Amino acid sequence: MVEMAALKEQLTYAYQFPLYRKLWDAAQFCPNDIQDWNDWTHIPLLTRNDILTTIRDNPPYGGFWFDGPKRLHITPFPGLGTIPVLASMEDVQRSIARETEVFRRAGFTRDDVVQVTFGYAPFYTGMHFHLVAEAVGAVVVPAGPGNAEQQAHWIAELGVTALITNPSFALKIGPLLPNNHRVRLIYAGGEPLSAVEGFRERLRSAFGGPGVTIIDSYGISEVGMMATECQAERGLHVYSNAIVTEILDPETGKSVPQGQPGELVVTQVKQEGFPLVRFRTSDLTRLVSDNCACGETVTLPKGILGRIDEVRKVKGVKLYPSQIAVVLAEFPEVSPRNYRVRLWAEGGTDHMELTIQSSTSHINEERLKERMRSELLIAPNRVCVETLLADGMQIIDERGKGAF
Amino acid sequence: MVEMAALKEQLTYAYQFPLYRKLWDAAQFCPNDIQDWNDWTHIPLLTRNDILTTIRDNPPYGGFWFDGPKRLHITPFPGLGTIPVLASMEDVQRSIARETEVFRRAGFTRDDVVQVTFGYAPFYTGMHFHLVAEAVGAVVVPAGPGNAEQQAHWIAELGVTALITNPSFALKIGPLLPNNHRVRLIYAGGEPLSAVEGFRERLRSAFGGPGVTIIDSYGISEVGMMATECQAERGLHVYSNAIVTEILDPETGKSVPQGQPGELVVTQVKQEGFPLVRFRTSDLTRLVSDNCACGETVTLPKGILGRIDEVRKVKGVKLYPSQIAVVLAEFPEVSPRNYRVRLWAEGGTDHMELTIQSSTSHINEERLKERMRSELLIAPNRVCVETLLADGMQIIDERGKGAF
Repeated sequence: MVEMAALKEQLTYAYQFPLYRKLWDAAQFCPNDIQDWNDWTHIPLLTRNDILTTIRDNPPYGGFWFDGPKRLHITPFPGLGTIPVLASMEDVQRSIARETEVFRRAGFTRDDVVQVTFGYAPFYTGMHFHLVAEAVGAVVVPAGPGNAEQQAHWIAELGVTALITNPSFALKIGPLLPNNHRVRLIYAGGEPLSAVEGFRERLRSAFGGPGVTIIDSYGISEVGMMATECQAERGLHVYSNAIVTEILDPETGKSVPQGQPGELVVTQVKQEGFPLVRFRTSDLTRLVSDNCACGETVTLPKGILGRIDEVRKVKGVKLYPSQIAVVLAEFPEVSPRNYRVRLWAEGGTDHMELTIQSSTSHINEERLKERMRSELLIAPNRVCVETLLADGMQIIDERGKGAF
Repeated sequence: MVEMAALKEQLTYAYQFPLYRKLWDAAQFCPNDIQDWNDWTHIPLLTRNDILTTIRDNPPYGGFWFDGPKRLHITPFPGLGTIPVLASMEDVQRSIARETEVFRRAGFTRDDVVQVTFGYAPFYTGMHFHLVAEAVGAVVVPAGPGNAEQQAHWIAELGVTALITNPSFALKIGPLLPNNHRVRLIYAGGEPLSAVEGFRERLRSAFGGPGVTIIDSYGISEVGMMATECQAERGLHVYSNAIVTEILDPETGKSVPQGQPGELVVTQVKQEGFPLVRFRTSDLTRLVSDNCACGETVTLPKGILGRIDEVRKVKGVKLYPSQIAVVLAEFPEVSPRNYRVRLWAEGGTDHMELTIQSSTSHINEERLKERMRSELLIAPNRVCVETLLADGMQIIDERGKGAF
């Protein structure tokens, strides 16, 4: 658990940068106002739009330049194309040391040959995982992204035992491997895994079955890695010494009860470069507190459930449309990225039509409704199938503003 | 200068690996046979074909696996697609430390913002230069290869002061930059620069003129970086504490007189992973010994002149066909990669026809002949221009075997 004293020090540090100076002054908040956790919610929430503004006002580094050796990486950023993110070399070392322990609990050893399929440049994910796996003592094959055939060739030829990859790419590689491949561990990141029912077992099967450990993880490029499973595969452990997590209602900004879905808001406990305080991740998740055999606490049992996009209240329940993609991913015959939601009022109650894309019309509609009821607490009244839909979700709300 | 004792230790170390065991036993050579430099030429030369054989016989690492932490990178390899190359972490640290000094002599400082346009994965060049520039204290923009427009955007937006790049890619970036860009240093690698007359000044002009320092360098992925210029731009300094260099006649394997072109053969003084002894680089260069203002010795005044490919004796002179590409690169209206050479005997002497590719027929033929005479000591009897030629050189030798 994080000491309040350390956090107050971090708040004072952050206050020197124009981003926080402007945001906090406008809200008449001062780091000295914080005495204990009861005051925590007085700290203004930070959005991607605030970062966009500070970078426009203080180019090119958003005012986050600081003395001393630093590492820079590029991250895609809505509205600006890409932005640079700075970390001090101490930040980098701290994050590698933290993750080295996490990798050990996930099952990595010095005898592993680890293939990394994330990009190394201009994004930093691949290089970070490369350095962490080396810190464990493993040998790393720096494959980089793309080319499943070439990746499968290296896995087979070089005796690769562990993969660090996004799970949907791993699903493409698995079938290309010979039966005697040696992969026994997959560290998955970059997209929902635990949240998609059956995804983990599909991935395990693609690599030959029960002997393969599948580890889910969560990080974003503005912050770095924040949570990972251990070998028990029971849910993600948040790096609670490095990150303060809150789950808020994205509309009200108020905390939601434990176990309820909401937007993940994070604060870095100690970070010299680009320090983030109460940063709204736009990611949707559920926070719990559950003991794990490894001695840590499971806090994100299903990882990330989707993105906070245009949240709608439907039949009195908050609908996070992107969570539909997570449910659709359970149905191999359906494209999880293409869907449309139409909402209308009829007989005094909300109605919902879900249109999905599939090349077959034989969709198990009842199972889809059941899974949506279970995961989103809302089932559509009607499911339509089309052979071609535009990419990405689309919401057509015909209820009028009164419905909100 | 390298101590013979250190080299004998390295030979004994290398002898434990199957590659050297097999090669040296077959030649009845034993590391103990070496007493001093006079015995050096008793060591069998090592070819890429020998490496290919040892990897086929001892997959996947060619028998080069060793105890302790190691770094792996992938390198393209003729006949095998790609091969893995291992280095110990001590090898990596030594090479970074060495290069940090070289970078300082080349003009890099801790105030630089350095953009790296080499790939980070699966090839290692980008990551190596990234870590070296950070060791100098600079901030690195890990751009990776490709996309000149995006690269130019980052250079302008992020206040980049130094580029690490191959020079022909830099020529594409330069014209896309605003006049107030801050690039003052270009560290060039991956292709001939000094060897191509006028290339350096063309590159300097593309970035705005006399204020820009252009540093040439030389390395190959099996060995790492081996030579770099200092700020004086007077030619490349070989890393003489780390590398023993020889220039041999590629046909006879005998040493050529100082200043004569020949194949560069290198030996790593201390290398735990993938140690190379008398490795034939296939690269063509001239070795000299010339004092430089920086206190080092210039040993590769023009860097790499081309590749040893099918060397031919023409008019009594050794013709290295790929060197033609280096001369053609001086003529912007000509494609340096597409050319054809036809040789025939007429009137008791050799004749040569050079066909080049260009969209214009207005080639300065006299200047081309003069440059070839100056660089290759052979000028073609006839120059033909075609609008489309197959990529890569081609030699049609109609003289019969008697000509050799």
